[in-house]
Parts: sequence; structure tokens; C-alpha cells
Amino acid sequence: MITIYSARHDRHHGTAELIDGTLQPCFEMPRRAEIILARVRDVGLGEVVEPGAFGLDPVRRVHTAPFVEFLSQAWTDWTAQGRTNDALPLVWPVPSVRHDRVPAHIDGRLGYYSSDAGVPITAGTWEAVQSAADVALTGARTLLDGAAAAFALCRPPGHHAAAAAMGGYCYLNNAAIAAQYLRDHGAARVAVIDVDYHHGNGTQQIFYDRGDVLFVSLHADPLHEYPYFLGYGDERGTGAGDGATLNYPLPHGTPWDRYSAALDDAGAAVRAWAPDALVVSLGVDTYEHDPISQFRLTSADFPSLGRALATLRRPTLFVMEGGYAVDDLGVNAVGVLTGFEDA
Amino acid sequence: MITIYSARHDRHHGTAELIDGTLQPCFEMPRRAEIILARVRDVGLGEVVEPGAFGLDPVRRVHTAPFVEFLSQAWTDWTAQGRTNDALPLVWPVPSVRHDRVPAHIDGRLGYYSSDAGVPITAGTWEAVQSAADVALTGARTLLDGAAAAFALCRPPGHHAAAAAMGGYCYLNNAAIAAQYLRDHGAARVAVIDVDYHHGNGTQQIFYDRGDVLFVSLHADPLHEYPYFLGYGDERGTGAGDGATLNYPLPHGTPWDRYSAALDDAGAAVRAWAPDALVVSLGVDTYEHDPISQFRLTSADFPSLGRALATLRRPTLFVMEGGYAVDDLGVNAVGVLTGFEDA
Repeated sequence: MITIYSARHDRHHGTAELIDGTLQPCFEMPRRAEIILARVRDVGLGEVVEPGAFGLDPVRRVHTAPFVEFLSQAWTDWTAQGRTNDALPLVWPVPSVRHDRVPAHIDGRLGYYSSDAGVPITAGTWEAVQSAADVALTGARTLLDGAAAAFALCRPPGHHAAAAAMGGYCYLNNAAIAAQYLRDHGAARVAVIDVDYHHGNGTQQIFYDRGDVLFVSLHADPLHEYPYFLGYGDERGTGAGDGATLNYPLPHGTPWDRYSAALDDAGAAVRAWAPDALVVSLGVDTYEHDPISQFRLTSADFPSLGRALATLRRPTLFVMEGGYAVDDLGVNAVGVLTGFEDA
Repeated sequence: MITIYSARHDRHHGTAELIDGTLQPCFEMPRRAEIILARVRDVGLGEVVEPGAFGLDPVRRVHTAPFVEFLSQAWTDWTAQGRTNDALPLVWPVPSVRHDRVPAHIDGRLGYYSSDAGVPITAGTWEAVQSAADVALTGARTLLDGAAAAFALCRPPGHHAAAAAMGGYCYLNNAAIAAQYLRDHGAARVAVIDVDYHHGNGTQQIFYDRGDVLFVSLHADPLHEYPYFLGYGDERGTGAGDGATLNYPLPHGTPWDRYSAALDDAGAAVRAWAPDALVVSLGVDTYEHDPISQFRLTSADFPSLGRALATLRRPTLFVMEGGYAVDDLGVNAVGVLTGFEDA
């Protein structure tokens, strides 16, 4: 399986995120991608290539133009205020309060275009974010060119980014951008399966009213876990998308056998959907030792996850999402890929 | 003029607020109320009394019951997660993303019921917040009992708190609670004039569709200043409240002469409204040396502000809001009151 990787991901390195009422060093860090890349090479997964340059048109197919403009300008606008720390949102529009405008000031815009305090913007964030979108798009192009599978080693991740909001370490939704690109270049039906520990709220929002992209997510129950507002079992899509969103919220402590049963069910839904291509939002924060997560998958379970996905027998693009037990991240993420290849 | 003061305000002392991408010591601190009280005594403004206990019914006349329940339980729910820092919101519902639920988890609830990261919740916050509401209600009762004026020395402040959201150092909207109490006990028409540097977005939201409470605010233009989302000149109320909201956004650097001209205009609107009682949201962060504000009022201007308000000749309740140049806060806040008394 080919891996697409851009060293420019390391231009994004946030200092801190707000957790438990205090700023803590970001769990989402450059070493995450580096350790996965090293493992890709160690196991000889396949060729590692640089992404192509796709520009912003395919990005704007899933994100609003004002949001993309905001992201591209945020650091400039922030530093124009004389600030030197990473940009973090501090004020946001609450749905219960009337608000008609997109604010002009960067502090207002940061809140308007975000859903949480886990998205620091640094000097290099936009460059890294663009490169991650290009990585995903190159992966999609690889499938369109006939590959059975590809691994888009994206960083920063993307699945919490909605059409007009960054959140949860995510700025642009790499998986959604890739899925849309597949749709726009020949795939009539696409399925996205999200196996990250956290619900892919951004991806769900982007495709919620669409009948051409199936979104299936296995994740920690939002009753007890981030992102709290979305990911409940009764969210099934709307309008043309009615029935094309499927959520499997699972309890804290979920081990492989329970996870695997939900995955079988999700796989049956994907099979019934008969997509021309499959995009996997690949988070391995379902791992038992993940520092911010509460599932109990072991390193030995990740190849089984890959094998289960292989049984769907679709051209498959893996898009890297979360996973924060950094030392084991390479083994776990690449374990899914080798399991898929060996199936 | 009588002053109502509760020493229990000091049960609320937040550690930090998020500003410019980093956590900084809270500008809103117990010493603010103490220095104002000392000045009240120094100048012999009048009697200082403890508030009565009004309970939560008059609070729930302007705030939703679930929001009040959330505030009363937030610290318990937060510490039940094993946390020891002040509670701060970290994830919120963005209007552009569909969300049907009030989350069960404290992290979700903190974001659902807040509009910014300036509202730390501590062990004593609820006790202090309740006492501030009682201070405002006691002030309203004082007017109903025939006083020409009263000073509710509330802390924490209230004008950024909406019906179902805390924000900007504010948890319950003391001024709105007092205005509603006046309405419920004989005043057919009430006017709220907000002279805090920041727009009283919470008060505006609470009365936006009401034809019985006039809300007039002079403040820094939200184009450049917190709260960014509300406070623009074209926000004038809706439905029965159409025309009963008046905003005077003013530029950075505004000195007394420009401020005074806007105040004259606002005063004419209050006079035309012919309210039975006037509530003044008294912030003195319009002061030239305020650390987070950009107007240029001097200590000599605050008595002039009080005199201008006195010309409205209405039973007047002053409710303390912002002001963060702590050393000068007593002189400036009480300067408004002595100016009012001397007129």
C-alpha cells in the first residue's frame, strides 16, 4: 500500500490546549506522524510519496469559502493585534442568543469558526493544514488511478472539522475532502467509516443531508465523552441523507469483542450501501493505553480491525485521524494497514 | 443613598481566564468590591446593608430553570470528575452545526451554558452569584419601598449573562433580575441603561422581544471589542420589543465629550420612555487607565455621568458591573453615585 506523507505537517505544533480547566501541552504533536512514518518504513508497507498540490478548490467543495479564508488569514490577523502566543478562541456565539453577524475582529472570528478550545493556530498551522488536505487528495487520486488501497498519513487530523468550524485538533476535514473528490471524479457512491475513538462530528455535519455519501462512525458515547453534542444513535441523517448516517456509540471500557460486533454491523451497512470507494477515518485512540480515551483495544486487535475492513472489498483510502499514545502509535496505526493487506 | 453589599461575594475568586491565547489571572477579583465598599464608607454615601434572601423564583423570571440548575450544580459535577482546577468551558455548540441535545456531561454542559472562556466556576461561585442576585433584588425592593436611589454593590457582575448562558465574568444577570422584579411588583415600565465599557449582551438578549423594558447601552463598538457578536447600532429589538433596544457603539479612544453627547441622546430616549424606574448597569471600565478597555474617561468625568443620570429624575437603582483599574475603582464608581446625589 502506498503512503502519502508531507514533512510540512511539522509546521503545525500547538503549545497548549484547554483541558480540565487548565492549559496543557497539546496531545496532538508532530511526533505522532513521524513515528507512524517510521513504522511504515520498518514494516515495508510500500512506497512513501509526497502529496501533489491540489489547491483550494477541492477544499471548498466541503468547507465554506469564508471559513477557508478565515483559516488562511487567522495567524496574520492574530499577530496584527500584537499577540505572540498561539491563537485560541475565547468567545463564541451561543445558539440561544441572537447573532446576525460574522465578527470582524479576530477574537470574534476565532470563536465563530470553532467548536472548542483544542485548536491552537500557530504561524505554520495553515501550511500544515493545506499539506494534510493535499495528502488526502493525493490518496483519493491514487484510488481513482486504480490502487486497491492507499494510506493518507494526514496531520493535523480532520474529522472534527465541519463545513465552517475547526475543532478537536482539526482544521480542514481531510477525509471529507477526499470523499468529495472521489465523488467529483467518478465514484457515484462513497462510504466513510470512522473508527476514531471520538465521534466524527465534522464529517457527519458535512454529509448529513447527502444521499451519496454514507457516514458510519464507531465511537465513545457522547453522553460521557467529547464531542458531547453529536454522535448519538438516533442521528441518522436528514432529507436526501436520511438513513445515510449511522452512529455506534459505545461505552467506556469497550474491549475488542464488543467493538468487533459493532464493526461487523457497520460493515454490513457499508456492504449494503455498495460504495464505489471507502474512506476510513483511521484513529487508533481506541487503544487501551491512550492517554485521553477509555476503550480497551490492544495492539493485537488493530490488525483484526484492518482484516475486517478488507472484507468489504472496496478501493479503500485510509486517512489518519487521532491516537495519542505516541510511543505505540506506529505499531497500532500500521497494524491496521498490515492487517488489511494480509487479509 | 443606601448601599447593599454581601461579603459572600468573596466566595467567588477565579484563578484564571483565557486572554490572548493564554491563561491569565482574573481581572475580576474580590478586591474590586472591597475597594468600592471602602470608598462608599469614606465619602459617607449612606447606610450599608446586607441583602435579604429572595430565593430563586425571581432569578427564574429572567433565566431558564435548566440554566439555573446547571449553575447551582456545576462545581459538584466538575469535581465529581476528579478535577481540582476551576471549571472552564472547552467545547461548545456552533450554530452552523446541528445539535439537538443538552449534553449530560459537565464538559458539554459548561460549553452549552456559556458564551466565552471568562467564566471560571469555583467552589464558592454559586454562593457568591446567589448573593449578588440578592443584593440586586434588595436594591429593587428599596426602590419599591420609596427610595429615590440605591446602590447594589453586586459582585460578580451580571450584564453579559443571558437567559441561558454565562459569559464575561457574569453568571446571573443582576440588573435584569432587578428590572424584572420591579416590573413584577408595580413598575409598569422599566428602563435599563448600561454604561459599562462592554455591551450588555446578556441584558439585551433577555429583554429583546419585550415592550415593557427599555434597554439602552453605551459601549465600545463590537466591531473591535468584546463581545463582538452583539451591540451593533442596528439592533433595536424585535416583536413587541421593536424599538425598545438602543445601542450606542463608540470607537476606541472615546473621551468624555463624545461619550457625553451619546449619553444625552440615550437620556432623551429614556425620558421619552417615561419609565417608572431606572436600572443603571454601572461599569466604570470606560476609565482611561482601565487595563482591558480603550475609552478615555477620567476620574473627574464620573461625577458628571452621575449628574447626567440624575436629570432623568426617576427612582434609580445602580447595579455594579465592570471596572478593572482596581486602585481607582472606588473613586470612579462612587464618583458616579456622589455626582448623582449632588445633582
